[in-house]
Amino acid sequence: MKLVRFGEAGAERPGLIGADGALRDLSGVVPDISGVALTSEGLARIRAVDPASLPEAPADARLGPCVGRVGNFIGVGLNYADHAAETGLRIPREPILFNKAPNCIVGANDDVMLPKAEQRTDWEVELAFVVGDRAYNVEPEDALKHIAGVCVCNDVSERHFQTERSGQWVKGKSSPTFGPLGPWLVTLDEAGDLDSLDMFLDVDGRRMQTGNTSTMIFKVPFLLSYISSFMVLDPGDVVTTGTPPGVGMGKTPPTYLKAGDTMRLGITGLGEQTQNVVNFSEEAGAHRAHAYPSGFDIPR
Amino acid sequence: MKLVRFGEAGAERPGLIGADGALRDLSGVVPDISGVALTSEGLARIRAVDPASLPEAPADARLGPCVGRVGNFIGVGLNYADHAAETGLRIPREPILFNKAPNCIVGANDDVMLPKAEQRTDWEVELAFVVGDRAYNVEPEDALKHIAGVCVCNDVSERHFQTERSGQWVKGKSSPTFGPLGPWLVTLDEAGDLDSLDMFLDVDGRRMQTGNTSTMIFKVPFLLSYISSFMVLDPGDVVTTGTPPGVGMGKTPPTYLKAGDTMRLGITGLGEQTQNVVNFSEEAGAHRAHAYPSGFDIPR
Repeated sequence: MKLVRFGEAGAERPGLIGADGALRDLSGVVPDISGVALTSEGLARIRAVDPASLPEAPADARLGPCVGRVGNFIGVGLNYADHAAETGLRIPREPILFNKAPNCIVGANDDVMLPKAEQRTDWEVELAFVVGDRAYNVEPEDALKHIAGVCVCNDVSERHFQTERSGQWVKGKSSPTFGPLGPWLVTLDEAGDLDSLDMFLDVDGRRMQTGNTSTMIFKVPFLLSYISSFMVLDPGDVVTTGTPPGVGMGKTPPTYLKAGDTMRLGITGLGEQTQNVVNFSEEAGAHRAHAYPSGFDIPR
Repeated sequence: MKLVRFGEAGAERPGLIGADGALRDLSGVVPDISGVALTSEGLARIRAVDPASLPEAPADARLGPCVGRVGNFIGVGLNYADHAAETGLRIPREPILFNKAPNCIVGANDDVMLPKAEQRTDWEVELAFVVGDRAYNVEPEDALKHIAGVCVCNDVSERHFQTERSGQWVKGKSSPTFGPLGPWLVTLDEAGDLDSLDMFLDVDGRRMQTGNTSTMIFKVPFLLSYISSFMVLDPGDVVTTGTPPGVGMGKTPPTYLKAGDTMRLGITGLGEQTQNVVNFSEEAGAHRAHAYPSGFDIPR
C-alpha cells in the first residue's frame, strides 16, 4: 500500500493511493497514519478495506508528511561506504545515531526554510523506515516484522551547527522544515528489495547525488535491531538511514543551498519530493506539521 | 502551582497539589498536563479554578511523569563546573546537547530497569524545565516567558552505551525507565530562585551527589534561548539541564547501579523521587508512560 496524509499542514487526513492512482480518504478507517494505525493490526485493518469503496479526495490535495505524530526521529550517520569516503571520515565500526527534532518534519513538497543563523545548509537524500510493531531488543532476523514501511527523507542539515557547535549532531539536524518525509509511506510488501534501490537528488536540475542502497554499510534489519538494543522503538518512530555521495559539503568547492534553489529527490518505487528553498522568516511555524500534538482547543 | 499526573501508567489523569496538600483531579479542566495545557493560556485556565472546588483524588494514587506526551527530551551535558572537573573533561565553550528518547520517561517513584546489555548504569540528579509557549529564536531575556515550570529529573545513563558505542550520547540516555520526571511540575512563579537550589542524590542511604544550581555553567534562560536557535521548542518539550558532582563514573573506584539498589533524589522546593533498581525484563513496556500516544483502540 501507498499510505499518505493529505490536507492542510497540521490538519492532515489519512489516505491511500489506490491501484488506479486515485487518492482515497481513509478517515473512516483510521484517525491518522500514525501510532497504532502502523502496527500489524492497524495495517491489517486498512488492508481489509476495498480502496474503491473509499471516498475520493481532491487529486490536487497537498500531501503532508506520510507519518504523523512521530515520537522519535533518528538518523544514521556515515552509513554509505562511498559517502564516508567522500567526507574523509573512517567507516564507523558500528552505526552512528543522532536525533532530529520530530517537529522538523514536513511534507514532501513543502518549502525548506534556511535557519536564521544559516551558513552552510546541505541536502541528503535518504531511505527512511517507519516502525510498526514496538521493538526492544529485537534480533536482526525478526527486524522486518517491526517495520511498517519505508519512504523518502531529505535529511536537511546545517553543517555549521552540526560540526562546529560542540559535539552532538542534533543541533544541525533539527531546524523547522529539515525533515521532508514522503510523498508516500510504502508498506514493506510493496517496497521491493531494500538493498538495491536507486536514489538521486538534483538542485536546480543539476544532478548532485546518485546512489543505490546497495552501498549501505549497515542494512535496515540490522539498524532496527541495533537501535532497539538501546531504546524502545514505538509505532510511528522514524529512522532515516544515511545518505549516498554527493552532499554539498563533499563538493569541490563545497556548495550549499540558497533561497530560490529547488531540490528534487527520489528513490525507486518510493516517489519523488520537490522543495523550494526559502529564507528564514518568523512565521516558521506555518510550515510545521506537528502543531500541539496533544493539546486541546482553548476557547477564545 | 504543583501540577501532577496520577493513576496507572499510560492512563494518568491531570491533577494538582493544593495549598492544603490534597491531590485534586483536574480532568474536568484540561485533558492532560501536556501540550497546550502548558502554554500561558492553558496555565491561566488551570489557575482560574479554585482547587477546593475540584474532586479529591486518592491520596495514595501513583504519580506518573509530571508532563505527558513529551515531543522532544533534550539533555545538557557537562553543565556544572564542579561536575566537569570530576569527569576530567574541559568546560564546554557552548552547551553540549543530547537527546533522550521521550519514551524513556517514567514517574518519579517508578522502578528504574537496567538495560539487557547493561554494564555501567549511573545516576544523575538534574533540574529539568518544561516548555510552555512555543519558542524559536528567543532571546535570553525573553526565555522565562516560554517556560511552564521545572521539576526533578534523574538523567539515568548507561556509560558503556554512552561513551564506547560510537559517538552520539543518545545511545546511553534512552533505555526504558531512564527518565523519571516529577513528582511535581512546579510552575515558575513558585519555583524560587533557579540559580540557588540545593540538589542531592542518595544510593541506599549513602549520599552520592550534593550540589547547587549556582554552579551551573549555562543557566536556564540562556539554555532555552540557545536551544531555540537550533530547533523549535514546543509546549511540553523537556530540557534536563545537567548534573552536579558525584556520579558513579566519577567515584574512586567507579561505582554503578545494581538490581536491589534504591535511589533517592531531590531539589529544594521541587520534591523528591525514590526509585528501586531492577534487572532487565522482557515486560519492560509495563513501566512505560507513553503507550501509543496517537493511537486508536483496535477492536478485539
